[in-house]
Amino acid sequence: MFIIGERINGMFKDIAQAIRNEDPRPVQEWARKQDSAGARYLDINTGPAASDPIKAMRWLVEVTQEVTDLPLCLDSTNYDVIEAGLEVCKRPAMINSVPAEWPKMERVFAMAAKYDAAVIGLAMNEEGIPKDADTRVALAMELVAAADSFGIPMENLYIDPLVLPCNVGQDHGPEVMQTLRQVKLLANPAPRTVVGLSNISQGIKGNRALINRTFAAMAIANGLDAAVGDACDEELMAIIATARVIMNLDIYCDSYVDIYVKQK
Amino acid sequence: MFIIGERINGMFKDIAQAIRNEDPRPVQEWARKQDSAGARYLDINTGPAASDPIKAMRWLVEVTQEVTDLPLCLDSTNYDVIEAGLEVCKRPAMINSVPAEWPKMERVFAMAAKYDAAVIGLAMNEEGIPKDADTRVALAMELVAAADSFGIPMENLYIDPLVLPCNVGQDHGPEVMQTLRQVKLLANPAPRTVVGLSNISQGIKGNRALINRTFAAMAIANGLDAAVGDACDEELMAIIATARVIMNLDIYCDSYVDIYVKQK
Repeated sequence: MFIIGERINGMFKDIAQAIRNEDPRPVQEWARKQDSAGARYLDINTGPAASDPIKAMRWLVEVTQEVTDLPLCLDSTNYDVIEAGLEVCKRPAMINSVPAEWPKMERVFAMAAKYDAAVIGLAMNEEGIPKDADTRVALAMELVAAADSFGIPMENLYIDPLVLPCNVGQDHGPEVMQTLRQVKLLANPAPRTVVGLSNISQGIKGNRALINRTFAAMAIANGLDAAVGDACDEELMAIIATARVIMNLDIYCDSYVDIYVKQK
Repeated sequence: MFIIGERINGMFKDIAQAIRNEDPRPVQEWARKQDSAGARYLDINTGPAASDPIKAMRWLVEVTQEVTDLPLCLDSTNYDVIEAGLEVCKRPAMINSVPAEWPKMERVFAMAAKYDAAVIGLAMNEEGIPKDADTRVALAMELVAAADSFGIPMENLYIDPLVLPCNVGQDHGPEVMQTLRQVKLLANPAPRTVVGLSNISQGIKGNRALINRTFAAMAIANGLDAAVGDACDEELMAIIATARVIMNLDIYCDSYVDIYVKQK
């Protein structure tokens, strides 16, 4: 399981300001930090405040690529913004994200095929986020079929079962765990799975990092492949490295945490 | 998921010495500490060095019961020692443990029926610990059938899938996760599950507590009900409380960790 670093996002004040002032330094600092902390992708999101999100996305991609070789995860609900980013990506990117809805899937999977990009597919549609695992898996199957029809290989499709904050949607937790397992049975090779780690603790006043890293270990135990999260949280990276060893995904040695962070 | 406090064990020097000197203070101090740290049972093990293990077990049970109302988990491979403890237990105890072997199961389940005790059943037999989940589940089924034939209710049977240290038996990790889930399908109501948390990190020089607590979260995500472990490890108790909230077993509130520790 790997982390898609969440920090280059206009929701954060320093990044919003960097975009406004066209000052690459905060963006590049977070790119370097997340890279050396063990992120495998960097999420790039202009945030809601960017006055020209297409220009902002292109700029963020360009300045990020100046300081890191990590692939990027282009994060927007506006597919023109994502395509603007894809055009300037040097390496195959990831598209974040598409729900199980037409014509959105057509637009996104066609872009993914054209730019050799991976896609995060959300287990939701016009009716919102399902409450149970079965409906989530049915929507994942629609994403699998759509991706396949555009020639997207399953290792480039990341299904997000969509977890809710545990103070408002607690009954979703076990359903998400079950969805993670069942998605692996939908195709052979199986699609991959991804979650937004901080979603589980959104709006919670207590120890959010504890909730996020506990959720990470639990999801890995059910086959999770990737998560958007805070690569600079050392305790999170340590628990991920440990869960990978327990699941026999990495060979145990005494320095396994360091090795996980440094491997690219 | 609850913790069976592991600390009253003659493997620890202070307890071995307490047994030798018939000095109840170290035993009672650990009983109180584990009780207030959130343990739900206390494991009682005379250790290998006790010159008269039957006498030692009886004494440990008696002095522990003087300071705590927690039920006890009598831990020995010598069933005469366990029976000696059961005779003086004030509350229904747990027997730790029996493999899927005759005539051991007969002795243990008959004792459990007589003393209204719960039993930890090990997914192993004369041939040792199986490598795969299927064989573990088959042995769990033998334990289920044997327990049932002695009238032991399923909520009093705790199946231990038996995890190996992750530096020597890494391939067992995913098999243990799968076993935890499948054991729940063996009967309705289902038997419970238990693990020895420290087994996953036995003999490892690195951060054993990190490995133990990561394993705990992962096992809870696969339905674990109980674990023998260090109730005084606050980070372990916090991750267990968090995993319980994520699995929707306890209602979220900001003070959920404190509440988990204090509830009895």
